Amino acid sequence: MTSFAAVDVITAKRDGGTLTTAQIDWVVGAYTAGEVAEEQMSALLMAILLNGMAPAEIAAWTAAMIRSGVRLDLSGVGRPTVDKHSTGGVGDKVSLALVPLVAACGAAVPQLSGRGLGHTGGTLDKMASIRGWRADLSPEALTGQLSRIGAVICAASPDLAPADRKLYALRDVTGTVESVPMISASIMSKKIAEGTASLVLDVKVGDGAFMKTRERATELARTMVELGAAHGVRTTAVLTDMSTPLGRAAGNAVEVAEALDVLAGGGPADVVELTLALASEMLALAGIDRDPARVLASGGAMDSWRAMVSAQGGDPAAPLPRPAEVEVVTAERDGTVTELAALPVGLAAWRLGAGRARKEDPVQAAAGVLCLARPGERVVRGQPVFELHTDTPERLDAARSELAGALRIDPGDAAPLRPLILDTVRG
Amino acid sequence: MTSFAAVDVITAKRDGGTLTTAQIDWVVGAYTAGEVAEEQMSALLMAILLNGMAPAEIAAWTAAMIRSGVRLDLSGVGRPTVDKHSTGGVGDKVSLALVPLVAACGAAVPQLSGRGLGHTGGTLDKMASIRGWRADLSPEALTGQLSRIGAVICAASPDLAPADRKLYALRDVTGTVESVPMISASIMSKKIAEGTASLVLDVKVGDGAFMKTRERATELARTMVELGAAHGVRTTAVLTDMSTPLGRAAGNAVEVAEALDVLAGGGPADVVELTLALASEMLALAGIDRDPARVLASGGAMDSWRAMVSAQGGDPAAPLPRPAEVEVVTAERDGTVTELAALPVGLAAWRLGAGRARKEDPVQAAAGVLCLARPGERVVRGQPVFELHTDTPERLDAARSELAGALRIDPGDAAPLRPLILDTVRG
Repeated sequence: MTSFAAVDVITAKRDGGTLTTAQIDWVVGAYTAGEVAEEQMSALLMAILLNGMAPAEIAAWTAAMIRSGVRLDLSGVGRPTVDKHSTGGVGDKVSLALVPLVAACGAAVPQLSGRGLGHTGGTLDKMASIRGWRADLSPEALTGQLSRIGAVICAASPDLAPADRKLYALRDVTGTVESVPMISASIMSKKIAEGTASLVLDVKVGDGAFMKTRERATELARTMVELGAAHGVRTTAVLTDMSTPLGRAAGNAVEVAEALDVLAGGGPADVVELTLALASEMLALAGIDRDPARVLASGGAMDSWRAMVSAQGGDPAAPLPRPAEVEVVTAERDGTVTELAALPVGLAAWRLGAGRARKEDPVQAAAGVLCLARPGERVVRGQPVFELHTDTPERLDAARSELAGALRIDPGDAAPLRPLILDTVRG
Repeated sequence: MTSFAAVDVITAKRDGGTLTTAQIDWVVGAYTAGEVAEEQMSALLMAILLNGMAPAEIAAWTAAMIRSGVRLDLSGVGRPTVDKHSTGGVGDKVSLALVPLVAACGAAVPQLSGRGLGHTGGTLDKMASIRGWRADLSPEALTGQLSRIGAVICAASPDLAPADRKLYALRDVTGTVESVPMISASIMSKKIAEGTASLVLDVKVGDGAFMKTRERATELARTMVELGAAHGVRTTAVLTDMSTPLGRAAGNAVEVAEALDVLAGGGPADVVELTLALASEMLALAGIDRDPARVLASGGAMDSWRAMVSAQGGDPAAPLPRPAEVEVVTAERDGTVTELAALPVGLAAWRLGAGRARKEDPVQAAAGVLCLARPGERVVRGQPVFELHTDTPERLDAARSELAGALRIDPGDAAPLRPLILDTVRG
């Protein structure tokens, strides 16, 4: 491989230039190998964040990250493979019901995830509240489970896009996370490396999401759909609202319980709507002509859930952990809930112990927030509107502070609710 | 001191904000103490380079760098103190004659310097070609020599603006050198910390200089003059042309020889012109009403030179080192020299061994380039135009390559020469 001086690559991007594929291959590879210093890469990342990247540069960067590790071959599982990735939202437990639902329709869903960091929670942390469940699967166990059951939610192995792992840790401490090219390359390198044939992206928009505006979310969605196409992965992105939490539960075990409600045919309307919409997109990409609503109603998705949990050592019949402490927050006046802000709810759940500040921190399975009143619902003064769950009561004050002002109650009738699904970007 | 999260300081600048004095105090101090990581500071430096800094931010950054070390007190030397700093040019040996000249006029010139890196050479490396001369002086020796002789050229001690030393090393490897706020803060923090009461800046403009355009050089000059004023140091900046080397010699001993010619009343016209112009500005700031041309002609400057060299262990009468190898490059045609580019000459001298690529590299005292033909001079084919001096003949090829195209010879008469002194910025 051609070699470059790191400073020349940095100054080219700093001065608004376009990096060549050879430069990108070299700098990603040399950084992963420890030959480009952390301080050089962070300067380059800041230059990329501020000066942007052309589509060809993002494609080359993504390809270099994929090549830094292995790319799984799932062609032998005997089912069409299709995965879903969410950019992260408060109360987003959709994967838990969606993965077994799409599997029950005949697809194989290889959902390889990372652990959560920050206020949006992580799917693996939620699943880990199920007694006995294990996140780690060997490659053989993964493909076997995909063939037999079709549903897998497990930890991504360290040899998938290792460059991304190193880069993500660096971006986190250097203020260079919020770059559309880097976010796109990070997500797509891992999803392409995991070997799925097609992919549906749930790009969250709003105050509780990474992308605060529809414009930025659309840019991210388009970039990722193009990256998928460039690597032979059929990709569709759905833009969805994240101004209010999804469903009523934000945390770990509380979210599993809500997902179980959905699998049982109930659950909050918004979670059901999004689960079915994403399932339809996934089945379309997988070429499977089934109606996910019928499969859900038939109990087939619940069967797949139980099989998936059991295959990874979990006991689907075990009771979920209960918190040591539950505190109730009540409505301050009569009226209609006109706003329930996602970010404060996410931060409150995080403060209660549901999430971690550093990647080595533990999380509490039973910690979280239940939103007993959602936008459009009428409340009377003194009625419970939040339940705070935690094993460490000293965290309650911080959580209550986060929630101050999260709920807006106005006199009169409810305004029309915001639509949940905003747009769809197809390849 | 208030403490901040490094990421918050980085993202504030990344998003185009203005850093507070408290944020700047903290980040410079914490970085110097090793509490802000190299990769965090380099991301911040890139954000500063791309998004700029307001005058108040540059002033706060400079103040924080000064406070990272000691500020010398030269009030007891019994003479008005005045220093000169050049932003670096090819063949710029002006300090060598200027410092003793201004001292001979009655001022004290505390020229504390760093070692050269790159193609423009360093004053200390040039002085080190004098047999026995030592760059290091104790604080007591420094003030004593300033009182007695008025002239000092020595190494800056490590406790002057240590933050700058650490930052400069980082900027060098992360493509963040070319930032007017950071260049200004770097130069001025060291000069203010050295304790001089007034300062003349020689800001070089042109292809052989750091600032390629007059616009950028003016911005740098204005910023530094304001910084000086803010710290009570009377400061004047002179913008001078650096499209062609200053004088005929670029290297170490060859430049000392040329400076000795100036001190003896001869030397190239441009070196003499600039030396006298800078001396006039320095004497004006120091409040000394002497004519430097008369003092130079009287031999007083040469006396100060000999006293200064002797005081630092040097033998002013010792012959200068001669190179093991001298190669001559000849003119390819008859005509008038219309261009002699500074950058290739500087790079050739550097290739021959006069400069260093890394700060731990040694330099050759005898290495350098003599420009036997300068712009405006007539040459005939076959006449020597360059002399290449080195102790390591294997370096000659690289030096010859750098010089290819450096000299332009056109038929006909000479065009008018560019003016050397372009502008003066006063506080």
